[in-house]
Amino acid sequence: MTRSELISTIEKKESFLCVGLDPDLDKLPPHLLKESDPVFSFCEQIIAETWEYAVAYKPNLAFFEALGAKGWETLAKVESLLPKESFTIADAKRGDIGNTATRYAEAFFQKMDFDAITVAPYMGEDSVRPFLAFKEKWAIVLALTSNAGSQDFQQVQNASGKELFKVVLEKCQSWGTPDNLMFVVGATRGEGIGEARKIIPEHFMLVPGVGAQGGSLEEVARYGMTSSCGLLVNSSRGIIYASAEKDFAKAARKEAQKLQQEMKVLLGRYRK
Amino acid sequence: MTRSELISTIEKKESFLCVGLDPDLDKLPPHLLKESDPVFSFCEQIIAETWEYAVAYKPNLAFFEALGAKGWETLAKVESLLPKESFTIADAKRGDIGNTATRYAEAFFQKMDFDAITVAPYMGEDSVRPFLAFKEKWAIVLALTSNAGSQDFQQVQNASGKELFKVVLEKCQSWGTPDNLMFVVGATRGEGIGEARKIIPEHFMLVPGVGAQGGSLEEVARYGMTSSCGLLVNSSRGIIYASAEKDFAKAARKEAQKLQQEMKVLLGRYRK
Repeated sequence: MTRSELISTIEKKESFLCVGLDPDLDKLPPHLLKESDPVFSFCEQIIAETWEYAVAYKPNLAFFEALGAKGWETLAKVESLLPKESFTIADAKRGDIGNTATRYAEAFFQKMDFDAITVAPYMGEDSVRPFLAFKEKWAIVLALTSNAGSQDFQQVQNASGKELFKVVLEKCQSWGTPDNLMFVVGATRGEGIGEARKIIPEHFMLVPGVGAQGGSLEEVARYGMTSSCGLLVNSSRGIIYASAEKDFAKAARKEAQKLQQEMKVLLGRYRK
Repeated sequence: MTRSELISTIEKKESFLCVGLDPDLDKLPPHLLKESDPVFSFCEQIIAETWEYAVAYKPNLAFFEALGAKGWETLAKVESLLPKESFTIADAKRGDIGNTATRYAEAFFQKMDFDAITVAPYMGEDSVRPFLAFKEKWAIVLALTSNAGSQDFQQVQNASGKELFKVVLEKCQSWGTPDNLMFVVGATRGEGIGEARKIIPEHFMLVPGVGAQGGSLEEVARYGMTSSCGLLVNSSRGIIYASAEKDFAKAARKEAQKLQQEMKVLLGRYRK
């Protein structure tokens, strides 16, 4: 998907919501466990009830890989089910070099048809560039994540007092363009978003940490929104586990709709 | 596998060789491509000819994932073929947090039966600890890799002039023990190995970069070997692609044997 297609979808849906698909067998509504492929049924129903409000979907690979080869089959089925107009992200956090990275890219961009894959930057340029060589496909590089451990290395300051996540933002942006490169920037501190935005004025940010992890959607928009929106805000648990009963998909719909309505207001207020 | 079992195997085989299984369809001997599962046939024959000289095997996930669900089936078949006495490493470079990381661990430690998985440290403590909660299983954390891009972030110095890879070694070692935690330390500079060894006197290092990437095996042993050996030196291309003809497995055997014989000498010289 191109950047202008993504922006069109955001405008049409008045939303910058990404729904995180983390289908954890321990958390699925119990009645689904009797089905032949509970993870698929779960994702199918979540997608059917949320697509009107979401512009992106982000399956996390761990929950599929935990089921082995069958989980990979399920992932491919889920991917092919995602609405064509939505931006699809394989949340795989891969990071390997050269030809090996290209194989990962082929797995997600060609064997399946994801628009984007999340990539860990630790190994540097030759672990990021291979993902940028695919037409209309995207790498989403982890910069500042929203977990407690993001303090351990991402916030380490270099000799000039610059945190590692800022060094990552600065270096990586020279490897790609706002048309094929995004960054994960967590929402746990609104100012973090603002500091990142100064370094990457054009790039889209994929923002985790709103909702269950405590980040404020209003702050994310205030500090991070650009004239192209420039934001995809992810919600996983808050939507997909809104209910563990038979009404889980309707409950997910309600949560997605609520976020979309907040986003509509914020697009009106902060998109310049 | 426990640390003492690993050390016993090293002593018995007089080797600290890890064979990297990177079965790239573009590089496999052409006659294999007619078979129903060329990647499996390739790995099967490489293992059959190298197991006498190797103490560890390290399949790289990218080459299996590039084949989709079928590739995961092949990986499971390859894993179950690896000799029980060898230390088996899923080179997956995963990095995600909490419950999500646990799902990755289950995929490789329980759904399959790998002894270890490689882990990227960028997301910090809550992305490493979940892998350390499995009995007799190991996390192998990327510290200093052997690719060109390792300069980009791993060598960034903090305010006290300490490179990030050293910060990673220092922090991570408090999360695990030498019985469940190893580090990837590349061989491109022997001194890098020596500097890492000062920080982690007890932990095993998984060392890439010898051979094709130019690192010297003698330097690795000189700077990195401990009284428990403390080293697993990986060779991938140099062994598995020693020949692209029908004799590829015999050629691999010859290369593995050559490395084992060098390692035997180095164990005699540097293990104190």
